[in-house]
Amino acid sequence: MNTNVPVGIFDSGVGGLTVAREIIRQLPDERFVYFGDTARLPYGTKSKSTIVKYSNQVIRFLKTQKVKAIVIACNSASAYALEEVEKEIDIPIIGVIKAGAIMSTQATKNGRIGIIGTEATVNTGVYSALIKAEHPEFEVFSKACPLLVSLVEEGWLQDSVTYEIASRYLKELKEKQIDTLILGCTHYPLIRKVIGQIMGPEVRLINPAYETAVELKQLLESQGLAYDPGKPSKEPKYEYYVSDAETKFSKFAATILPDAHTTKQISIEEY
Amino acid sequence: MNTNVPVGIFDSGVGGLTVAREIIRQLPDERFVYFGDTARLPYGTKSKSTIVKYSNQVIRFLKTQKVKAIVIACNSASAYALEEVEKEIDIPIIGVIKAGAIMSTQATKNGRIGIIGTEATVNTGVYSALIKAEHPEFEVFSKACPLLVSLVEEGWLQDSVTYEIASRYLKELKEKQIDTLILGCTHYPLIRKVIGQIMGPEVRLINPAYETAVELKQLLESQGLAYDPGKPSKEPKYEYYVSDAETKFSKFAATILPDAHTTKQISIEEY
Repeated sequence: MNTNVPVGIFDSGVGGLTVAREIIRQLPDERFVYFGDTARLPYGTKSKSTIVKYSNQVIRFLKTQKVKAIVIACNSASAYALEEVEKEIDIPIIGVIKAGAIMSTQATKNGRIGIIGTEATVNTGVYSALIKAEHPEFEVFSKACPLLVSLVEEGWLQDSVTYEIASRYLKELKEKQIDTLILGCTHYPLIRKVIGQIMGPEVRLINPAYETAVELKQLLESQGLAYDPGKPSKEPKYEYYVSDAETKFSKFAATILPDAHTTKQISIEEY
Repeated sequence: MNTNVPVGIFDSGVGGLTVAREIIRQLPDERFVYFGDTARLPYGTKSKSTIVKYSNQVIRFLKTQKVKAIVIACNSASAYALEEVEKEIDIPIIGVIKAGAIMSTQATKNGRIGIIGTEATVNTGVYSALIKAEHPEFEVFSKACPLLVSLVEEGWLQDSVTYEIASRYLKELKEKQIDTLILGCTHYPLIRKVIGQIMGPEVRLINPAYETAVELKQLLESQGLAYDPGKPSKEPKYEYYVSDAETKFSKFAATILPDAHTTKQISIEEY
């Protein structure tokens, strides 16, 4: 296999760009193809069957781009669809949940871990199941925070309203005296500062984007799939595709990632 | 034509139920088939081409249900898609915008009208164009309020946070000294109380759902399509379809409309 083909990364929209950014930082040689399902976002309020169907279409599209591995850079799709889709795919695929769950078990000192995410992610209980499988004695507390995604998309990143809404959602997790909080939605690192202020310095925030890039690096190395700089690819390094009009996405993406102004629109239902 | 077939009503999700409710109040004999595109909601943040594509699919589905007329109970779809889709359809179709726009011109005393809606609705400028076509001397001020839909869906209908966010959005419209405000998104009637408190009693709120039901009634009567109680239909009076899993929708819909517990899921991409 040609190890210099790209990695596929997908999310319902822009949230997964925080994962792509970590991949660029930690694997600066690797190429990627990013897909944002902007015509059908968000995923986090939708049902399992719909998220599985959408994820399968996206994976079929990414396979046409000849990717060597896939990162589901969306907690909701990782929670609902990873197990279903990995049965049917012949290349490695990882989500954003496992790495964050494992990291949280290493970070906690008092064994009390909190998780915030979309309704979909929280309803599956998958973070909790992964943590308890390793440490049945740990206590895990989850809270769905649906409005936080909308606030990030509105760009109110350091705003009194965002602080007020996040405080309300986080109140019960604070009362549970957690010492570790998983940011279980790829939008949340963008309001990490507000969340940190509310939780206080004694609570460690886990950003699964970082841990996912570490996991991807290990995976590519262990399977002999890492990019070989000795045989440089002539293809574009970073490619971006979306299912809705590209303008809005590329405007935002270009502020944080290279080459996003070249984003192209495709018709995802055809896959 | 059999006049006792249903009217088709569609929206991206639950917002259009406020229109269906008005239709029940004002046309208690009429049957309807409601479709909520819950697998792809919201529409209001998406592009024209995507909204037109989705609306065409929904209309093809509604036509399989043998409807006699269609109401686009969604401002974003009315703003972007009505003009496109009415060219290709052989039954009457109306949106929610025209009736509300005309009503606002009758309600205003100082000729200063405000409109709040989604990004899609506000970006098209369609309310403003309709008002100015009749009254070029009127001043029209629009404001996109993307977070209000999320707050309604979160159920924070009478909440201090909703008040704070709505106040921020409405500030500039208040400063423009409007005396009439169009609730240009079908979710907003559900937070009408908060909006009324902020704007004050001197500002008249226009709910296009009410005016749309009036327009539908006139349309059916003028075209000889009104339900004939002399030949009662044996089919279900109200039917509901959605594109995502039906549970969440039917739970909410059943609190405000009859028979919504019978909601069925269909695969809208196939139309």
